Amino acid sequence: MNIELNYTNIMDEIIYEEGISLLDFVNIKEKINTAYDKVMQKCKNDELGFMKIIYDDILIYYELKEYSKDFDNIVVIGMGGSILGTQAIYEGVKGIHYNDLNDKKVYFLDNSDPEKTFEILNIINLKKTLVFAISKSGNTAETLANFLIIEEKLKGITKDYKKNIVVVANTGELKNIADREGYKFYRMPENVGGRFSVFSAVGLAPLCCMDIDIEALIEGAKEMDKLCRNKDIFKNPALMNATIHYIAYNKGKTISVLMPYIERLHKFGLWYRQLWAESIGKNGIGQTPVISLGAKDQHSQLQLYMDGLKNIIITFITVHKFKYDLKIRSSNYLNNRTLSTLIHSEQKGTEISLTNNKIPNISINIDELNEYTIGKLIYLYEMQTAFMGELLEINAFNQPAVEGGKIITRKLLEECPVDEIKESKPTKKYCIEI
Amino acid sequence: MNIELNYTNIMDEIIYEEGISLLDFVNIKEKINTAYDKVMQKCKNDELGFMKIIYDDILIYYELKEYSKDFDNIVVIGMGGSILGTQAIYEGVKGIHYNDLNDKKVYFLDNSDPEKTFEILNIINLKKTLVFAISKSGNTAETLANFLIIEEKLKGITKDYKKNIVVVANTGELKNIADREGYKFYRMPENVGGRFSVFSAVGLAPLCCMDIDIEALIEGAKEMDKLCRNKDIFKNPALMNATIHYIAYNKGKTISVLMPYIERLHKFGLWYRQLWAESIGKNGIGQTPVISLGAKDQHSQLQLYMDGLKNIIITFITVHKFKYDLKIRSSNYLNNRTLSTLIHSEQKGTEISLTNNKIPNISINIDELNEYTIGKLIYLYEMQTAFMGELLEINAFNQPAVEGGKIITRKLLEECPVDEIKESKPTKKYCIEI
Repeated sequence: MNIELNYTNIMDEIIYEEGISLLDFVNIKEKINTAYDKVMQKCKNDELGFMKIIYDDILIYYELKEYSKDFDNIVVIGMGGSILGTQAIYEGVKGIHYNDLNDKKVYFLDNSDPEKTFEILNIINLKKTLVFAISKSGNTAETLANFLIIEEKLKGITKDYKKNIVVVANTGELKNIADREGYKFYRMPENVGGRFSVFSAVGLAPLCCMDIDIEALIEGAKEMDKLCRNKDIFKNPALMNATIHYIAYNKGKTISVLMPYIERLHKFGLWYRQLWAESIGKNGIGQTPVISLGAKDQHSQLQLYMDGLKNIIITFITVHKFKYDLKIRSSNYLNNRTLSTLIHSEQKGTEISLTNNKIPNISINIDELNEYTIGKLIYLYEMQTAFMGELLEINAFNQPAVEGGKIITRKLLEECPVDEIKESKPTKKYCIEI
Repeated sequence: MNIELNYTNIMDEIIYEEGISLLDFVNIKEKINTAYDKVMQKCKNDELGFMKIIYDDILIYYELKEYSKDFDNIVVIGMGGSILGTQAIYEGVKGIHYNDLNDKKVYFLDNSDPEKTFEILNIINLKKTLVFAISKSGNTAETLANFLIIEEKLKGITKDYKKNIVVVANTGELKNIADREGYKFYRMPENVGGRFSVFSAVGLAPLCCMDIDIEALIEGAKEMDKLCRNKDIFKNPALMNATIHYIAYNKGKTISVLMPYIERLHKFGLWYRQLWAESIGKNGIGQTPVISLGAKDQHSQLQLYMDGLKNIIITFITVHKFKYDLKIRSSNYLNNRTLSTLIHSEQKGTEISLTNNKIPNISINIDELNEYTIGKLIYLYEMQTAFMGELLEINAFNQPAVEGGKIITRKLLEECPVDEIKESKPTKKYCIEI
């Protein structure tokens, strides 16, 4: 038992009319059971690949891990679900200053910002860099663009450029290039959605080259899988947390704040933010995920959380044991305290203060943050999202609304007249020049 | 004219029932005028120091700039309003990889996470580092803690430790230490709120040591100040943008998304996020600021924005001219396009697609991002926030709700029994061990 999901401060006996009662759970018992059954049925029907891949053989990555030792740097190219999970685990385990403190540098190309790509290409020695290009569709515009730029540069500096490239895809242009050129290739399974794919080659291939213990990671996910198959909501953390968020949403909590009190979990927050937004945000339904970082956001967002619209439910994540600690010498109350005692007291102070203001809040308390516990945490949220989709009666596994923008972008790049693209044609431009 | 505030896509002639009509502006003409008058009156009464400090003499910083040239690194210690503006301007001008590409490294200690402080102390050579400790109250716990740790280490490695320290404060423990030790000291004015203080010594002292042209920065702010004193809403960008957000809020837009399409503006987003949340979030009122980053968040948040609850108003920020660009060679529609063309087309595609879905959106289009334009941008949002406070009839310049948590934190550090702190005492702990 190295993680605790504590939901005391969402109960009505603590926060009164803003809380959830045991009766609320009883009242939707049928609905909860149906949601549980549907997820398990979909898993049986092979529709939820993310619940299967954690049992795949991971031995295939050990050869890649060995192979990667010849390279000084790693660059991962990908967007959204093809990169956020890898970033979450890498930074969650290695910390936010790994590049500053180690010889092997890791960079992520996760945007089409030309300054970012240009600068990273100026920092690294490309010849000594192992480059991952990752896209399920194989056609993601930003991924293709960054990959084609890097591939051209590699071809310009070495005849052995094929050695430097690894492709992870299911289909599309990227797979065609990999086939044609004979690049190292890992296939992403068809029945795993992008944002649920971190335990497939999408995450495991690059992570095993970053000195991440992928075996412990998968062990954590498997351990969590067992717990999430329990039909008793009071023993199933994913079903419980989904149900709490479902009831809270129906009580007007349209924003779900995730607030880790450790900087290493910031990228985990960004991974969760995609998972929750893309899975749940559809058909006029949606709970907006917001990432806050403790203690720093106490000086930025806490005023709003405490005294703004009562439209939030907040989840704290705390880590008991930090990698390092420092002692404070002072003439006041801080004397002989450590920084870890300070940040833990700040979290507790914020939690109690929010509870006194009747803001529903949950704490996920982790003993130590490592591959095993972060594997648990990620799988917990994947299952929670699957259950939440069924509770809301929406398909958590598609993202139909983003296609429109992609089509328009492509038309713009093909220099289609804008009039053909817009539904509404303004007669006037409303504008202030400044 | 190097910035454009384009609000076409919030008008009812474009997005119909989700939009704002010219009549909406007319209907609250009195209210808008009153808000304008109140801000100007408060400025006259010397209550709004942030509108005055941009006319202060900045020559005092040139000596510090010269002095700083003897140091290899700069560390800024501060929380919330004492550091977010400096980060926004530094990264907005210098980019996200400045430390990787330059010998002079800049680090920000803006949390009580012990791993962060420990790692930064391991990266830098403290003896060759100029350390800024910044806190208006002089008593901010995290700032004091980090400062005391660094001060002790400095004293341990050099007798000349006083040379390495600069303090910016108004009062409190930090000022006492600076007085006692005789550290370089810059006074933060009493009548400037922390989150409105970046154009005071809080921002200018560290920024002038980071090779930032603070003269151009202040020029931009002054230029914007002129525009924001125009009583005609159709010529005053801050009054217009505040009014748009006010009307939108009353129409149920409880979330304000800011989405720059350039990574250099991410920290600007975090600065705005504090400004908007702490100023507007009180008395049961509040519009939650959410920072998205284009194009990457199209693969994370766009599904929700397009098809979730219709509770958002979104502001794009685009920058026409990037510092660098790269050309793409491909066999498809990307061929011979540049990354900047791709990201601009993605922003436009998203904008049109959201408009087709009747999501109100504004574009702030900047010709080139530098000290002058970012100075304009920051002052625009400061004035917009002041006007928004008056429109909502709340005090935008205090943050009363965060005190409670600080008091509890202090009691916890002084080992007060938790029973004395909590208002509600749970009889049971609701928890799942995982």
